[in-house]
Amino acid sequence: MSVYLRDIPLPQAQARFQKALEEADLWHMLGEEEIPLDEAAAGRVLTAPVWARLSNPRYNTSAMDGFAVRSWETQGAMPSTPVVLFNGRQAAYLDTGDPLPEWANAVIPIENVEPLEEDGQNALQMRQPYAIRVRAAVTPWSNVRPMGEDIVATQLVFPAGQVLRPVDLGALAASGQVRLQVARKPRVAVLPTGSELVPIGSELHPGDIIEFNSYILAAQVNVWGGVAQRFPISGDDIEQICQRVQEAARQNDLVLLNAGSSAGSEDFSAQVIEKLGKLLVHGVAVRPGHPVILGMIHREDGSWIPIIGVPGYPVSAALTGEIFVEPLLMRWQGRATQIQAAQIQAKLTRKVTSPPGDDDYMRVAVGRVGEQVLAAPLPRGAGMITSLVHADGIVVIPRGSQGLEAGSQVVVRLYRSTTEIEHTIFAIGSHDLTLDLLAQYLAKNDRRLVSVNAGSQGGLVALSRGEAHLAGSHLLDPETGEYNLAYIRQYLPGIPVSVVGWVGRKQGLLVQSGNPKLILSLLDLARPEITFVNRQRGAGTRVLLDYHLTKIGIKPENIHGYDQEEYTHLAIAAAVSSGRADCGLGVAAAAQALGLDFIPLFDEQYELVIPRAFQDTPLLAPLFELTHNDEFRRAILALPGYDISQMGLKIADLG
Amino acid sequence: MSVYLRDIPLPQAQARFQKALEEADLWHMLGEEEIPLDEAAAGRVLTAPVWARLSNPRYNTSAMDGFAVRSWETQGAMPSTPVVLFNGRQAAYLDTGDPLPEWANAVIPIENVEPLEEDGQNALQMRQPYAIRVRAAVTPWSNVRPMGEDIVATQLVFPAGQVLRPVDLGALAASGQVRLQVARKPRVAVLPTGSELVPIGSELHPGDIIEFNSYILAAQVNVWGGVAQRFPISGDDIEQICQRVQEAARQNDLVLLNAGSSAGSEDFSAQVIEKLGKLLVHGVAVRPGHPVILGMIHREDGSWIPIIGVPGYPVSAALTGEIFVEPLLMRWQGRATQIQAAQIQAKLTRKVTSPPGDDDYMRVAVGRVGEQVLAAPLPRGAGMITSLVHADGIVVIPRGSQGLEAGSQVVVRLYRSTTEIEHTIFAIGSHDLTLDLLAQYLAKNDRRLVSVNAGSQGGLVALSRGEAHLAGSHLLDPETGEYNLAYIRQYLPGIPVSVVGWVGRKQGLLVQSGNPKLILSLLDLARPEITFVNRQRGAGTRVLLDYHLTKIGIKPENIHGYDQEEYTHLAIAAAVSSGRADCGLGVAAAAQALGLDFIPLFDEQYELVIPRAFQDTPLLAPLFELTHNDEFRRAILALPGYDISQMGLKIADLG
Repeated sequence: MSVYLRDIPLPQAQARFQKALEEADLWHMLGEEEIPLDEAAAGRVLTAPVWARLSNPRYNTSAMDGFAVRSWETQGAMPSTPVVLFNGRQAAYLDTGDPLPEWANAVIPIENVEPLEEDGQNALQMRQPYAIRVRAAVTPWSNVRPMGEDIVATQLVFPAGQVLRPVDLGALAASGQVRLQVARKPRVAVLPTGSELVPIGSELHPGDIIEFNSYILAAQVNVWGGVAQRFPISGDDIEQICQRVQEAARQNDLVLLNAGSSAGSEDFSAQVIEKLGKLLVHGVAVRPGHPVILGMIHREDGSWIPIIGVPGYPVSAALTGEIFVEPLLMRWQGRATQIQAAQIQAKLTRKVTSPPGDDDYMRVAVGRVGEQVLAAPLPRGAGMITSLVHADGIVVIPRGSQGLEAGSQVVVRLYRSTTEIEHTIFAIGSHDLTLDLLAQYLAKNDRRLVSVNAGSQGGLVALSRGEAHLAGSHLLDPETGEYNLAYIRQYLPGIPVSVVGWVGRKQGLLVQSGNPKLILSLLDLARPEITFVNRQRGAGTRVLLDYHLTKIGIKPENIHGYDQEEYTHLAIAAAVSSGRADCGLGVAAAAQALGLDFIPLFDEQYELVIPRAFQDTPLLAPLFELTHNDEFRRAILALPGYDISQMGLKIADLG
Repeated sequence: MSVYLRDIPLPQAQARFQKALEEADLWHMLGEEEIPLDEAAAGRVLTAPVWARLSNPRYNTSAMDGFAVRSWETQGAMPSTPVVLFNGRQAAYLDTGDPLPEWANAVIPIENVEPLEEDGQNALQMRQPYAIRVRAAVTPWSNVRPMGEDIVATQLVFPAGQVLRPVDLGALAASGQVRLQVARKPRVAVLPTGSELVPIGSELHPGDIIEFNSYILAAQVNVWGGVAQRFPISGDDIEQICQRVQEAARQNDLVLLNAGSSAGSEDFSAQVIEKLGKLLVHGVAVRPGHPVILGMIHREDGSWIPIIGVPGYPVSAALTGEIFVEPLLMRWQGRATQIQAAQIQAKLTRKVTSPPGDDDYMRVAVGRVGEQVLAAPLPRGAGMITSLVHADGIVVIPRGSQGLEAGSQVVVRLYRSTTEIEHTIFAIGSHDLTLDLLAQYLAKNDRRLVSVNAGSQGGLVALSRGEAHLAGSHLLDPETGEYNLAYIRQYLPGIPVSVVGWVGRKQGLLVQSGNPKLILSLLDLARPEITFVNRQRGAGTRVLLDYHLTKIGIKPENIHGYDQEEYTHLAIAAAVSSGRADCGLGVAAAAQALGLDFIPLFDEQYELVIPRAFQDTPLLAPLFELTHNDEFRRAILALPGYDISQMGLKIADLG
């Protein structure tokens, strides 16, 4: 029995899977069922074209409340020479939608007739008078909805494959349908495996991993029109897994075996599939997600059922769903292919590298800044579930490419509507915890804040390229002690920007709780037994550190861990909390968040740099409104170390 | 008790409704409920921001299968000067995701170590050797996923109002959530009323109208996150309606009372609402949909509940849902507003008029032709459910506008993704029944066919403006007996187009079954007792008729009904079938469809005119492939009167 893992290109893997499904006679619509035409039919997929059985309207009907008449009997009617028509023989009241009598060929709206009593007086009974007086001729067929105006019997109402929307139910009913032939919902088993996994809500011990891929996969299946059956966690026990897989195969159309798809010591998926059927593919050259397995296994009755070994990293698992499960479910439901996902052309904000052997599914945040649509690459790791959560779309860097340059035009497969993209404030720059709060409050006001952590200098560079609506920045000018202004003059010459106050905050050293290593100032960073964790080059906090190190005469090479870089204050806190470092420079709120001690050292100003082209736009208006919002201001003050006295104030206009 | 109907502007109606809801303390999230974090949570809306309780990873973990080591113990390791580390004291095997031991600060992937037995030989047990030999130094923290790399405890995971997608469930679980606070689903009662209504599937008598608005409304409610309760049909009996409304109010958050919202003889909705509470608005200046009613009624316990009187025409009903029900359900679920709907700028293909007093919701078909995005107005009637079914989006012509000129730039609120729009073949021109079949087969091949019936000449005009990918045309040149070529030279001078054969078809007179009026040729059209129904000016069939009338010396003014125009063959058949006309000129298939008799008169060629700019595009490729597809060709031949010998053949290249 061989356990191997050799990535093959995606199209080849797909072709091999499709061929096996074809051979098993499973590469087509799974089956259909008849359902009643009611609201539960919305979302179902028609398996056959629907032709109208009835016309709509089924006969000529009145388009108004009024009187049916023969048009020629109104000929010559004028204000001064009215025509009188007798109810019953020459005129008949109709409500809107009532069938037109055979003898009539027009309707006069009720407001255009004078109902009369037998004595010629105005009738009180508007709708059953003795006669009506008409002061204008009507043309034939006026105010009549002709039979078949909407739908003519026999015409095509929907092609096969129509995914029924609410209004479609109306057209089906109007055309005389009573029951519908729709695709049977594919049943998909989701089997989590792994002895390290524990269910959501378990008490957690070291080494336990919360199992949640099965929820992602099951929810995906449901969204794609299938019915998911989620199984309990199986341990790393090949017999147990085999039993569960066989049980799952009995009741389902597809089995997803999650994790154990790689070639590690406890990766049993390939063995299980070889034992129960045939392994078609072990390893596909996609990233993330490459240790995916495709196979076909036998049910106990001898029939075949496809099985997919889904990788364990959550991003890989979710993308395996999108790449392999979604198209299969579409095919099984008779839905042509997925042409639903909107695509957009965008400009890449930074250079990315890519393994040339793989189709690389890169998650990006997307925003429109002025005329440019921008795609900012998100963290690439397969374990970064937040990179999928924050993703506005996917850029596929194809096999053969070693990466893309900053500024490249890319095609983004969007997860969001273009309208949501238009409502996005695209911030690139320094990270501050108050941006999380800002995002939360903006969400209530129809704005999305996409905030890309590139450091203060990175933010100014982005502004200089017209690639952000604003940049958070806290760059200390050592010469003047002023914040930001000197840097803005350097990075943004001639670009009109405003500097708007945001927060004053305390920077200091984050150390482990109780400060076991007695770290008291930057001087301690040079102690040989102290490990530091640094912010990345270009971060305002890094500039601050370097400024003060120079002042006190400590050289970077004498600081253990100076080269260990993180991109956010919380990441610094996490590094200290996990023992990876003894201390780092950051804000008080980050220390509090993870229960660290904080040695306050410096007060600094964190400001927003906003090109004047965007300052007075409707897009940014909610942000400026929030600077005066009491609830928002209180929420910030609840974080330690923040001063909001400058928030929303214009600090300077430059350029 | 007054029944009145006076349209007020939409913003005023919305404001009045909102004010009443505010006074009843109902203009906010309805309530929340706690649900377990599982796949059923997808689609639910978070009512509060979620902050991470756990970091992900919760500790430093191995990013690879490999050995945990102290990086400094590998210093100096080179291919020629390997370092040996002892298992247990200096190295420990870890699977991907295992926690890093406290003493370690790096991981060496298993493929980069040589496992050794005690005697220095290669170990068979890869993962529990006596020692490992390492031939390269590792840097600190390499192949380690640091604690909090993905999520740092305390950080914002989602703002309130997040509509949960499958991947979001992963981020929630990874950040330590177990149960979720989500918005309670609003409950909405849908009450159909009207004595003329019968349920789907009933035997139909004259005057019966199939009730289906309740299904549209209920499905809309479900799609928008509510739970719909559909009631049986109430007759036009004010007591019964009152009882049903009270019952509905008891169990629901909103009541939709369908039809009876106008001021006709059996329109009781306004009376019911005045009896049970207060009528806020009766009549809103929107089209279609203006007889909408907004009100608040008392439950038996004295609490208020909003009620909407929904107009009876299906398009009005569906748009009332979109305009009044959807925003209320969004508000009740704490979803900021609907920024989901994509919008697109498009160019109007023809002039439209609009009542200046109303906000006019015009349905449009949308396609991209070359660089232009085009919006073609669909039929406007409120009874045209197919106009909503075929709508790719809505253009709102605001109050105060009398209409829009052809070529106007409009904003379309899209019902479809922009990608679907990109996959749309936009055909403007003559109508033929085979286009229905074509649409059906194209749908299987990832193409949508939008086919706008504008007549053959209308199609050529559209091509001349670059507003269609192709035009169906059958314009007879009286001089040569040739089809289309002379007209193309006239309408499309200098524009390179190809003429591609499509179908030969029989045109003739459609007459009532059994031909009771003994109509045998065009000569009969001049008989005074015969009523004709004509095709619109610019239609090839109209050209054909006029040519032959001239030939036989019959003047249009001598034909009764010559001015009665319809836009399609089926509409002609419907007019004859309903008795509105005795005969019309059309194709055999239309006669057969409605069981009419057919008097064949002329053979003609129906061809596709395709600008060469589009001819070889991937967009049109599936259409050309279908011309060779046996199944498709057989489906056409199953219709009477068609000849497909020319289908797909290049007839001519012009321009």
